[in-house]
Amino acid sequence: MKPFYSFLTFLFLSFSATSFAQKYVYDIDRTEYHDDMLYESVRRIIRLPSVNGLQPIKCDFHIHTVFSDGDAWPTARVKEAWQDGLDAIAITDHTSAAPSKRNVTGGPNSSYEIARPEAERLGLTLIQGTEITRSKPEGGHLNAIFITDAAKTLDIPTEDAVREAVRQGGYIIWNHPGWAIDTCKMFDVNERLIASGDIHAVEVFNEAEWYPRALSWSRDLKLAPIATTDIHYLTNNFYRISEQSIRPMTIVLARDKTPEAIKEALFARRTIAFFNGMLAGDSRLLYDFFFTSVNIRKISTTYDRDRNAFHHYQLTNPYDVPYVLLPENGNGKKITLHANAEITFTLPAAVREMKVRVLNLHTYEFETLEVVIRLPE
Amino acid sequence: MKPFYSFLTFLFLSFSATSFAQKYVYDIDRTEYHDDMLYESVRRIIRLPSVNGLQPIKCDFHIHTVFSDGDAWPTARVKEAWQDGLDAIAITDHTSAAPSKRNVTGGPNSSYEIARPEAERLGLTLIQGTEITRSKPEGGHLNAIFITDAAKTLDIPTEDAVREAVRQGGYIIWNHPGWAIDTCKMFDVNERLIASGDIHAVEVFNEAEWYPRALSWSRDLKLAPIATTDIHYLTNNFYRISEQSIRPMTIVLARDKTPEAIKEALFARRTIAFFNGMLAGDSRLLYDFFFTSVNIRKISTTYDRDRNAFHHYQLTNPYDVPYVLLPENGNGKKITLHANAEITFTLPAAVREMKVRVLNLHTYEFETLEVVIRLPE
Amino acid sequence: MKPFYSFLTFLFLSFSATSFAQKYVYDIDRTEYHDDMLYESVRRIIRLPSVNGLQPIKCDFHIHTVFSDGDAWPTARVKEAWQDGLDAIAITDHTSAAPSKRNVTGGPNSSYEIARPEAERLGLTLIQGTEITRSKPEGGHLNAIFITDAAKTLDIPTEDAVREAVRQGGYIIWNHPGWAIDTCKMFDVNERLIASGDIHAVEVFNEAEWYPRALSWSRDLKLAPIATTDIHYLTNNFYRISEQSIRPMTIVLARDKTPEAIKEALFARRTIAFFNGMLAGDSRLLYDFFFTSVNIRKISTTYDRDRNAFHHYQLTNPYDVPYVLLPENGNGKKITLHANAEITFTLPAAVREMKVRVLNLHTYEFETLEVVIRLPE
Amino acid sequence: MKPFYSFLTFLFLSFSATSFAQKYVYDIDRTEYHDDMLYESVRRIIRLPSVNGLQPIKCDFHIHTVFSDGDAWPTARVKEAWQDGLDAIAITDHTSAAPSKRNVTGGPNSSYEIARPEAERLGLTLIQGTEITRSKPEGGHLNAIFITDAAKTLDIPTEDAVREAVRQGGYIIWNHPGWAIDTCKMFDVNERLIASGDIHAVEVFNEAEWYPRALSWSRDLKLAPIATTDIHYLTNNFYRISEQSIRPMTIVLARDKTPEAIKEALFARRTIAFFNGMLAGDSRLLYDFFFTSVNIRKISTTYDRDRNAFHHYQLTNPYDVPYVLLPENGNGKKITLHANAEITFTLPAAVREMKVRVLNLHTYEFETLEVVIRLPE
Repeated sequence: MKPFYSFLTFLFLSFSATSFAQKYVYDIDRTEYHDDMLYESVRRIIRLPSVNGLQPIKCDFHIHTVFSDGDAWPTARVKEAWQDGLDAIAITDHTSAAPSKRNVTGGPNSSYEIARPEAERLGLTLIQGTEITRSKPEGGHLNAIFITDAAKTLDIPTEDAVREAVRQGGYIIWNHPGWAIDTCKMFDVNERLIASGDIHAVEVFNEAEWYPRALSWSRDLKLAPIATTDIHYLTNNFYRISEQSIRPMTIVLARDKTPEAIKEALFARRTIAFFNGMLAGDSRLLYDFFFTSVNIRKISTTYDRDRNAFHHYQLTNPYDVPYVLLPENGNGKKITLHANAEITFTLPAAVREMKVRVLNLHTYEFETLEVVIRLPE
Repeated sequence: MKPFYSFLTFLFLSFSATSFAQKYVYDIDRTEYHDDMLYESVRRIIRLPSVNGLQPIKCDFHIHTVFSDGDAWPTARVKEAWQDGLDAIAITDHTSAAPSKRNVTGGPNSSYEIARPEAERLGLTLIQGTEITRSKPEGGHLNAIFITDAAKTLDIPTEDAVREAVRQGGYIIWNHPGWAIDTCKMFDVNERLIASGDIHAVEVFNEAEWYPRALSWSRDLKLAPIATTDIHYLTNNFYRISEQSIRPMTIVLARDKTPEAIKEALFARRTIAFFNGMLAGDSRLLYDFFFTSVNIRKISTTYDRDRNAFHHYQLTNPYDVPYVLLPENGNGKKITLHANAEITFTLPAAVREMKVRVLNLHTYEFETLEVVIRLPE
Repeated sequence: MKPFYSFLTFLFLSFSATSFAQKYVYDIDRTEYHDDMLYESVRRIIRLPSVNGLQPIKCDFHIHTVFSDGDAWPTARVKEAWQDGLDAIAITDHTSAAPSKRNVTGGPNSSYEIARPEAERLGLTLIQGTEITRSKPEGGHLNAIFITDAAKTLDIPTEDAVREAVRQGGYIIWNHPGWAIDTCKMFDVNERLIASGDIHAVEVFNEAEWYPRALSWSRDLKLAPIATTDIHYLTNNFYRISEQSIRPMTIVLARDKTPEAIKEALFARRTIAFFNGMLAGDSRLLYDFFFTSVNIRKISTTYDRDRNAFHHYQLTNPYDVPYVLLPENGNGKKITLHANAEITFTLPAAVREMKVRVLNLHTYEFETLEVVIRLPE
Repeated sequence: MKPFYSFLTFLFLSFSATSFAQKYVYDIDRTEYHDDMLYESVRRIIRLPSVNGLQPIKCDFHIHTVFSDGDAWPTARVKEAWQDGLDAIAITDHTSAAPSKRNVTGGPNSSYEIARPEAERLGLTLIQGTEITRSKPEGGHLNAIFITDAAKTLDIPTEDAVREAVRQGGYIIWNHPGWAIDTCKMFDVNERLIASGDIHAVEVFNEAEWYPRALSWSRDLKLAPIATTDIHYLTNNFYRISEQSIRPMTIVLARDKTPEAIKEALFARRTIAFFNGMLAGDSRLLYDFFFTSVNIRKISTTYDRDRNAFHHYQLTNPYDVPYVLLPENGNGKKITLHANAEITFTLPAAVREMKVRVLNLHTYEFETLEVVIRLPE
């Protein structure tokens, strides 16, 4: 059994006169402590730009624990999200799967209640949530976040549950629509809920699935685009998160990371889905995001043998989103502007701007962002 | 809610006429499946040599789940161990912490029973175990593995619990002795249990702590040296396991990975503790391990201006344990023979052998392995 | 100035009585030697299978040095290839670029002569070569390897130079055909040389360009498919080679890595181009390569609630080539069998084999390898 | 042969009417361009703090090319330094090794002259330099940078050469003093040059050797501490530079990266040696560097069962230098504050500050920096 305070990294025992101090008195001369192996108290920093004066709040609104069919304890979900660099999460265990089936007791709000103290300790914003799941396919899969009591959404039809959640102040996300997408139709339940204004957002990315069609719907139906992990297993074992690999998230452009600010931003649809090195969202937001991230400078000018001038430029990207650029006149060659890197390139001096398609920035199905980069003097 | 078979990577739907097939029918044209993000069904291969005709079975005998004070569900412990390249684990929830305290129901054998089907599915050897923990410091912390019923070790004094475990065929490991080591004394309970032959092994490494003194005890008292994670939190979030970073383990040299073969090898003390790029154990085993791993070849001969001959050698290490070499006449310079790599070096032709201290192979406190490498003609 | 023997990792000074020993006498107590930073003497191991009793010789037949328009000294090309895990290289400076233009003196054989002692010291096979380049586009770009005197290919028309190289025993590779490929025509010079049997191989990959059309030509015109770096800049700075990233190479299936064995294998067209996680070559060779690499085992059987049996399999790939699998009935989902990893998957017991397209194994333009994996009992 | 403009990443062919455009016309439909493999035009960003309003200019003042006994062409030294994130370098080929010995022609200023256009193109500050090396051990090894003509330092005794360099405006660095350090004496030549004020700096780190004694001398004798690579081989092959591994450098705190600003800062001794995750330099500079890098916040407060308050803090390090902390009352346990990461820790509310030794910040031999971190309310 590890001591209760095992997560505390520093222990200033001389200041703490309580008896638990005694437990830690091991002879340091006989023990070699390999602190370089340990990451439990370490959080990575994910670098994203502030856009239009708003902060990029890193969120995952779809997470499961042992209180539905997940593999991790609620506090572990908070800790792994904190380590992974997120600012806010919602745990969304579904009310329809009785946890007691797997030796777990408690009600539909238990995971939230258990996770809350850990979230407060670490300064991670924890948003109360639940997944409304009904057995019939057309029953729908919807996440309700910013609710106050998941119990009241139990044992009633999907649409009643959604309306109860909305009544509690909830924000409703249509989950993994790719599971039921076809060319011309969506399930009736979703259609009715969208018509009544009771669905506010749609997952364009879930786990490892990206739904370009749902991105189109987000624009056409005025839903916020969302990316989530829908994680059931352990996040780092599922995705092999590393310094080079970031877990899927929704970037919410908000004035801060309080629940209120996140909620305001969500209803205002200031969200960008970020997954596997790709961004998906509103073209205006992506445009601002790109130009806030990337900086261009002219470094020098050289001349060829015929005295034609060439300018040498550097494009700087100090953030964690890479950009795959396809210049209009670049002979079909792509250029990757990696995260946290600069690239250099050369153009005839006569060129004053370049039109570039950013292949990993998606604005609609079959549409990527096109930008014009003005070249500095 | 994810479908029941979400862990199944391949789904040959045309062969499965059951109704669950319908759940998966999404329109692939509208969904882009990023399989490159997913590692849940991926296991890394850890390369260790077979030594003296015996296989290097990769084991972790100290693991916690939500059924004591851990953060992961028992099946998740099996899956992460399998992914991390282990062959065998014991889940050792302690009997003294009532799981019901944290919304979990079940008895002291529940984690084993829940984990077993997953272990069978994946071919991971699961050994039944329990941690015998008593509240008084001198009450001892001991792991009993290869037991048949943890319930019978409950609510009785430490030594009675240990004897019950031994009666069940158990193998007893003295846990994290560093917590109570001093220069001249060990707790009475451990002393008595060792004297009576009821402790068979000792952790020389636990979590991130390495106890050189316990390695000395392992030799002097004829206990098998053991390295364990004692993992409570999620293993990959705790250690940041990667291709360059291997979780702590006990290498058991056994004829195969069946429980019987592992047990035989443990009682015969054919174990090597492997942690943070270091090995600790019996000098003869480490000697054999080293020379089975490393291969030396002469590549060529050159001559300097005075016609003195120099031979050029390559040292090959195709395994995942690196070696930090300190040659006797090397002017104090160390050479790292990395895992999965070769190094080249040059010696005067007159040199026929070289004496090398292997700084990361520990045989006793303040002792590392010394080897003589004979140079091939 | 570094001492002449700075590349020697071990220096057994007590054995070497020469005066240069004195230079190294520094006070080790005052110097901390960070050997963990140094990789100059370290070679990575690239794991590829032996196929049909033949060894996978790792080759790069297109490399430049400061003796044409490259950035590295010839010995450095040998050392970086050795570090990168290659077995054999040809330095192919072109005869048409006078090296004296850039403060370098020497003839068209100088880079080979300077590199040879280093190659011998390290046991890397060095094949004499040259690039035959003429200024007119249709002049052709061809590599001649296994030649004996590049000087004789100077200052004569392309086809004469090629015939001189062939007369010397040379093997002729048509370089980066992508620079001049269109739908229906190749340059006349190439057409004539192929017709006369004086071109033996074609690059299907050069630097970062992959030419599927050239792969078709390799089959139709009976040329060996080749992948090369055509490196001019420093290889590791160009590609960021790492444990996860392997430099482009031609895998030559030969009985050993002697020049004679490599030459025999090249004329027999037993080559596979390996680049960026992809293989390209003859379908029969790729088939054998795949099935020698990959191993399948049945681990266990489970039953669902309707008593339908499911078998659980593991697919093992202990080599450095990954495979991207597209099962025929897998609903369009891909599975990546990573390098040095295992994957698990589950199938109904009734399934006896599975047809899989290996998306990263190319056999012709628009063609990838299809295999049938028989499932073990 | 690669086209002259092969380094240009973008080629806007429609704008360039010159004939060389024709060379590039390949049929893009037949060529798949793997831009993700290419890093030649990519520069990493190394994050270091601005300290006291001064910029951290990243410098390497000791580099060799083929114009002495190095393995790379001068332009390649510029490009690899630019890629590695440096701002300024000096190429310091030694005048005593005649380059013509290895098929290279040119004088002692050739490497500077050849490298300069590339440095200008990329915006890397290139400082003219030379290494003054004499064959007798006591002849000394000294780098002179900011000189104007290396030829005038040829063929004259060490001290005359140094004085000539100083006359040119040169800055003199005593190279790898570890090669000749003992307890009580330095070579006469160094002693005399220091006495006359003609040595301005001393390498405390060279290649992979760290000289704590030289750090003491830097303080006692008022010399600027310097870290250099002294690279002869290819830098990335020597060190395996990666996102996790930074090449050794001198951090010069200057108002900008112009030669003038760097020179001013060097004479003012505002330098910090940075190598292998360690910093060495003046204690005041290191103190400012540390506190500019690290930020502490209080996140929350919790209470134990006895109503004792505990504050939870986060320590943020958004830069590329890690810190290994040893808290005074931390029971001997170290904590690593990784680069680009945050750590969390907990203290009793009564604790108002913590004294911490920063084990990887060296201020003198056997001395590391001690800091007092005041805990925010």
